[in-house]
Amino acid sequence: MSNVNELTEEQLYQRYEQLKAQLERYKSENMTLDMSRGKPSPDQLSLSEEMLALLTADELITDDGLDTRNYGQLDGIPEAKSWFASILEVAPSQVIVGGNSSLSTMHDTVARGLLKGVEEEAKPWSSYPSIKFLCPSPGYDRHFAICEFLGIDMIPVDMTNEGPNMDQVEALVLEDETIKGIWCVPKYSNPEGVTYSEAVVKRLASMKTKATDFRIFWDNAYVIHHLTDTPDSLVSILEEAKKAGYPNRPYVFSSTSKVTFPGAGISAFVSSPDNIAFTKKQLSFQTIGADKINQLRHIRFFEKIGGVEELMKKHAAIIKPKFDLVIDTLQQKLGNKNIATWTEPNGGYFISVNTENGCAARVVALCKEVGLTLTGAGATYPYGKDPLDRNIRIAPSFPTLEELQKAMNVFCDCIELAAIEGKVEKSKA
Amino acid sequence: MSNVNELTEEQLYQRYEQLKAQLERYKSENMTLDMSRGKPSPDQLSLSEEMLALLTADELITDDGLDTRNYGQLDGIPEAKSWFASILEVAPSQVIVGGNSSLSTMHDTVARGLLKGVEEEAKPWSSYPSIKFLCPSPGYDRHFAICEFLGIDMIPVDMTNEGPNMDQVEALVLEDETIKGIWCVPKYSNPEGVTYSEAVVKRLASMKTKATDFRIFWDNAYVIHHLTDTPDSLVSILEEAKKAGYPNRPYVFSSTSKVTFPGAGISAFVSSPDNIAFTKKQLSFQTIGADKINQLRHIRFFEKIGGVEELMKKHAAIIKPKFDLVIDTLQQKLGNKNIATWTEPNGGYFISVNTENGCAARVVALCKEVGLTLTGAGATYPYGKDPLDRNIRIAPSFPTLEELQKAMNVFCDCIELAAIEGKVEKSKA
Repeated sequence: MSNVNELTEEQLYQRYEQLKAQLERYKSENMTLDMSRGKPSPDQLSLSEEMLALLTADELITDDGLDTRNYGQLDGIPEAKSWFASILEVAPSQVIVGGNSSLSTMHDTVARGLLKGVEEEAKPWSSYPSIKFLCPSPGYDRHFAICEFLGIDMIPVDMTNEGPNMDQVEALVLEDETIKGIWCVPKYSNPEGVTYSEAVVKRLASMKTKATDFRIFWDNAYVIHHLTDTPDSLVSILEEAKKAGYPNRPYVFSSTSKVTFPGAGISAFVSSPDNIAFTKKQLSFQTIGADKINQLRHIRFFEKIGGVEELMKKHAAIIKPKFDLVIDTLQQKLGNKNIATWTEPNGGYFISVNTENGCAARVVALCKEVGLTLTGAGATYPYGKDPLDRNIRIAPSFPTLEELQKAMNVFCDCIELAAIEGKVEKSKA
Repeated sequence: MSNVNELTEEQLYQRYEQLKAQLERYKSENMTLDMSRGKPSPDQLSLSEEMLALLTADELITDDGLDTRNYGQLDGIPEAKSWFASILEVAPSQVIVGGNSSLSTMHDTVARGLLKGVEEEAKPWSSYPSIKFLCPSPGYDRHFAICEFLGIDMIPVDMTNEGPNMDQVEALVLEDETIKGIWCVPKYSNPEGVTYSEAVVKRLASMKTKATDFRIFWDNAYVIHHLTDTPDSLVSILEEAKKAGYPNRPYVFSSTSKVTFPGAGISAFVSSPDNIAFTKKQLSFQTIGADKINQLRHIRFFEKIGGVEELMKKHAAIIKPKFDLVIDTLQQKLGNKNIATWTEPNGGYFISVNTENGCAARVVALCKEVGLTLTGAGATYPYGKDPLDRNIRIAPSFPTLEELQKAMNVFCDCIELAAIEGKVEKSKA
């Protein structure tokens, strides 16, 4: 099929009827397919099963003699701090190891900013009539949800193929003292798979901000989640911020949720020595420490399998064919129709698709009708509002290849139908 | 030795010199003993070691088909909800299973109260110029620390041997809309080992409060932590509050921190159906769910050993001799001297000692000088200020019996020295 915009009225109508008939056939198949969330598939989870029975009674003491079974060690066991330090290229002393969810750590960091402020001298953010976060969009819906829940105004900022539009970012933070933060997924971003360029990282690290307590929430969720042998590389925001004289600006978050088990991984909060000291003091009121046995279990497992890189290669071997299938199907079914564009990331968990303007919500609804669940249209934008109604996030990891092929056939046909039905209605009117 | 108050001046001086010499001998022994925190001992921790290697690859699916390895199940796996429900005598639907720390859940519940309010119609507590919590004292230092950290004013309320002084409590909450909560450890209380009487529970559940969004923070940490075969029993606060027409008043917290592993247990938040629904909605912004593998690991372990009661009996068999030693030594060394009183609890983790007024800080300092660390004097009161400077919390669980005997000898001698040195100085002046 060729460019939809070049079809005659008759061809358009014919194709419209074909696609409607196709959708009826899909409906009759009673499918239940889900490409909505970035969940690892069961075969990925099986890669870490050896971890479960790894620890035994005489292996519960850390290298420095700490009993992982008992209370204590607010910032995690030394082994786990060192492990995250090596992955994130920082000093172990810059790491606080947390529980099973970096999302919780991010939520709590924002909540503490509101209740207590982010440094000794700073006012609690809740003492302002309102504060704002910059939200490079499309972005991660759960970041935006934290802001919405906690009453923080969100300002969307455009994403480019090397990160947030820095002209917009710099202009905004320079003028407004109530802009206190920015959400970033700097490597294999959610949903576009963009890795921030060196120039973008340096500008984020060194830009002048009106707020002296501005913070970058650097969600490095996919730091080791490569899909190819030529992975993207990311400049260290902490290094750059330190060089620029703003060492306390970045808060870095990461976890093993998509390395071992999403429900039972370990997470890290990483920042400057000042921020770590300040945060440890605050954390000591909330917890006596995260699950140290699970930290040790992770470390021993990574040691046993010869390093986490081996594990990540196995993940890639399972996921990459799914990404390829998604992209190949998009190319085959929509490649020359001029009604959609998509990303081809080197890592992470998502592919981002842009339909024609005004079509995304319709596509998601059409897919839903025939049993395919997608991330809601608009979810990748603050307040769930995609101003152009065009972005859809595809999460290909959980379904099997067979399910995924079905899902992508449905998806592509729905995109085409949504594009054509608009034109048909226009030509009828 | 007899009542210190009946000694002649010469006898007093003689005893003073004896005790000073004794303390010098202790010093020369270079002891390092710790009775400061309620930590289980290593032999208690060993009781649960079988749990570690219990789960294998084919046992990770819950009874209702949920994959514990993946994301999801915000309120915990059904098995864990049922387990806590049976312990706390509520319906499983009233349980949200949390991570390794009920302290975190308490902190977060207060923080959400401040940021968002405790019900749809209620104002965020942070929108008041200030709010207050009632603090039955002596009480748990980490409860008071949460209030201090989050800027909540604390009003101490006397503890009686059947719970908080309810005349004080009722009078306060009736008049002041900004009193939003009360901290309670209702069973084997920290530090006195008091279990709230039926009358106290009923009055707490049914009292009129000026604030419509008043909450009871019911930290049922020691619900199954009995030391005798005739355990205390506690009336259900949730039942009583429901009967009284205030179903949403109590928040109940519990955990397995002192059942399995303090650093790697599971916790529960338990409340009315309305509160559970409201809290789940709020929690969904903070987390996708706690560690479900660890939940399943706990349940399978309890099943395997024939129920948690068996485990708790083994704990008691280790702890009870320590409690006995503490109480016997207090009796032998201070029994008839009229300078100290103490509690003899049927469960929990602490013994509470009252010295003569004005002596507690001095006793703790004297003990510290010879190498014995106690919970700080005043720690059991809001802001660390014991108005009579007399309460000291003893945590006998962690040391061995031998260490504990040494520690108690030191402790009793320091109490006597602190009492006598005051009298000697007075008689000198």
